[in-house]
Amino acid sequence: MARLNDNYLKLKAGYLFPEIGRRVREFTEANPDAKVIRLGIGDVTRPLVPTILKAFHEGVDDLGREETFHGYGPEQGYEWLIRAIIDKAFKPLGVELKVSELFISDGSKCDTANILDIFDLSNKVAICDPVYPVYNDTNVMVGRSGEANDKGYYEGLVYMPCTEENNFSPAYPTEKVDLIYLCSPNNPTGTVASREQLKGWVDYARANQAIILFDAAYEAFITEPGIPHSIYEIEGARECAIEFRSFSKTAGFTGVRCGLTVVPQELTSITAAGEAVSLNKLWNRRQGTKFNGVSYPVQRAAAAVYSDEGWAQVKEVIAYYLDNARIIRENLEAAGITCFGGVNAPYIWLKTPEGMGSWEFFDKLLRECHVVGTPGSGFGPSGEGYFRLSAFGSKENVREATRRIRERWGKK
Amino acid sequence: MARLNDNYLKLKAGYLFPEIGRRVREFTEANPDAKVIRLGIGDVTRPLVPTILKAFHEGVDDLGREETFHGYGPEQGYEWLIRAIIDKAFKPLGVELKVSELFISDGSKCDTANILDIFDLSNKVAICDPVYPVYNDTNVMVGRSGEANDKGYYEGLVYMPCTEENNFSPAYPTEKVDLIYLCSPNNPTGTVASREQLKGWVDYARANQAIILFDAAYEAFITEPGIPHSIYEIEGARECAIEFRSFSKTAGFTGVRCGLTVVPQELTSITAAGEAVSLNKLWNRRQGTKFNGVSYPVQRAAAAVYSDEGWAQVKEVIAYYLDNARIIRENLEAAGITCFGGVNAPYIWLKTPEGMGSWEFFDKLLRECHVVGTPGSGFGPSGEGYFRLSAFGSKENVREATRRIRERWGKK
Repeated sequence: MARLNDNYLKLKAGYLFPEIGRRVREFTEANPDAKVIRLGIGDVTRPLVPTILKAFHEGVDDLGREETFHGYGPEQGYEWLIRAIIDKAFKPLGVELKVSELFISDGSKCDTANILDIFDLSNKVAICDPVYPVYNDTNVMVGRSGEANDKGYYEGLVYMPCTEENNFSPAYPTEKVDLIYLCSPNNPTGTVASREQLKGWVDYARANQAIILFDAAYEAFITEPGIPHSIYEIEGARECAIEFRSFSKTAGFTGVRCGLTVVPQELTSITAAGEAVSLNKLWNRRQGTKFNGVSYPVQRAAAAVYSDEGWAQVKEVIAYYLDNARIIRENLEAAGITCFGGVNAPYIWLKTPEGMGSWEFFDKLLRECHVVGTPGSGFGPSGEGYFRLSAFGSKENVREATRRIRERWGKK
Repeated sequence: MARLNDNYLKLKAGYLFPEIGRRVREFTEANPDAKVIRLGIGDVTRPLVPTILKAFHEGVDDLGREETFHGYGPEQGYEWLIRAIIDKAFKPLGVELKVSELFISDGSKCDTANILDIFDLSNKVAICDPVYPVYNDTNVMVGRSGEANDKGYYEGLVYMPCTEENNFSPAYPTEKVDLIYLCSPNNPTGTVASREQLKGWVDYARANQAIILFDAAYEAFITEPGIPHSIYEIEGARECAIEFRSFSKTAGFTGVRCGLTVVPQELTSITAAGEAVSLNKLWNRRQGTKFNGVSYPVQRAAAAVYSDEGWAQVKEVIAYYLDNARIIRENLEAAGITCFGGVNAPYIWLKTPEGMGSWEFFDKLLRECHVVGTPGSGFGPSGEGYFRLSAFGSKENVREATRRIRERWGKK
């Protein structure tokens, strides 16, 4: 008799965003006239820029002619896209990568989940709290944890609280861990790791023979000089880190689907017998066997991001969102609400006013201001009392939403 | 110290197609003037049809305007695409499906691999031999097997030989199994399961509380009346089967990337405690957490397959490939080579002439006829002495390839 994967049943409730969706739906059905503004889910709202659109169309046209038709592509992605990324996204940082070290995928949500395939279940995993829920849930799903306790922590996973007290920069785990998820610029807190902090993690990982899973999905939003865009800017990272990147927030690809993962050739992990084996080789095998490459026109569109024209246009869109972030931050602060992030990231992490619980604030914000955000507690217990607002939205909506919040909470 | 997934090291050599690629590259580098014709990998060659191209472009255009921009879509796929598939691909077969039972994905290679996520490792798995390598390799990778024996069978997996003797229709496993992979029309043999045969499998699965993983990626190639296109045409299949479908071969989407998986609401599997739980719910959770939906323009293109115009155009392309299959079959048979398949499938499964080994024939065909095919042994030990030719290619190439084979092996 077929047995299911019992680990799935350990997962609490639904994934965060479906629950938000449910509450918003309920509210809008009861209040059809309310002009609800959504700054909840981290989804882009600006259209694709002209140069990317043009390349996307050209890719589609290629599929319409026998001479230029593309069937199965390399599972790892087309070399022209990989080379464009190496030259334009990594070289300017002083980071040298080989073509064989980049793997194009349909998004970094998939990659940060799928990467677990190549690791043994016995590895101890450390994740931040609050955290992008995928890191936590996928480890539960593969069976790396026991049940969740009342707090929401799953037995067997190591949580690293990130709060105002430690400036959202977690302490090193006190117990030995093997895999460490880091995300900078951070989702959900919008804060960013400095060069010194990242160097600390790389040194820690090397000293403890741990591997860092570095999520750089928001690196394009870094505005302050000196903040690393890639973990490989840190010496020694090639021996201890896998980096995930995404076109989703960089170029508005949330509905287009493209990301990439870097697995350096030097990176090894050990077998049960203690022998070191290349993780690049394993990930290559994983992708070759379980994945069939990214849509060809999507890869054409992604390559256009790195043309001079495309990059200039993309930077404008990012500046637009960052200006939204500034508006949100300044207005919330003017209303006496404490804010973090929003300088090198499209997220503002605010302390809920009057010590409200995260979901309590969610419901109040929805009912009284008709604004949707994301409860901090949805990202982990240390997110309780915090709330995430996203800078993705139209300037008009962002202004109107912050006007409503200021009107409701601002000290006149 | 981070431990890798040792199961990956059990896998023998590379995946089949990279090895073919290597040998062909070696040959063409040594023989730059040889006009090599590739009928090896099962990859389509005809361009996308006009109606699909138009919808694809429209989808891209939508992403270029704020009013019609699409960011994250439902992880399960857009309802308009799901409804089109239900109405046009399943209803005409007498199969009623609910929207919640279909999951749009980026291809059935991924889905047939990922489906293992929701099952416990303790399940006994049965696969055909020869078989699409992904079924075998992914089970090895998750740790459901021991090492491979000399024959190439992995310890712990149940193999069901499909040979000329049993007409490529495997006998029921003699030991108890929990998950059974079936593929019809079959890759690689090109043969097809009759209604009686599929009914036998559904009855067997229900009697043994096993689950059938039914790969129908080639159903659009069925030409003979009475052959089921979906396992759900068989009574009782909703309680025991998951079906995988693909746009790859149906509509030339190998480079576009779209597939779908059907998980009926009635389908359950049991927990460790013996409680029955909906697999639809588990797969939904898996996709929601580890996948981010298919590219929006790709879904627009996929929906166009089911417009009246689109479907008529797609049928013409399929007829073109099936005519290629007929040409290959007739010419090989005229050359005295025994052939199977190629009537309800784009694959011809031939017995190698003069009792040659599969790779021996591969090398001879490449060197003497400059034609690339796929060694049957690459699909499993029972494929030894067989060889797969694919009908994907231009009419001209197919004619020329078969002319060369006939010249080389034909009795003049």
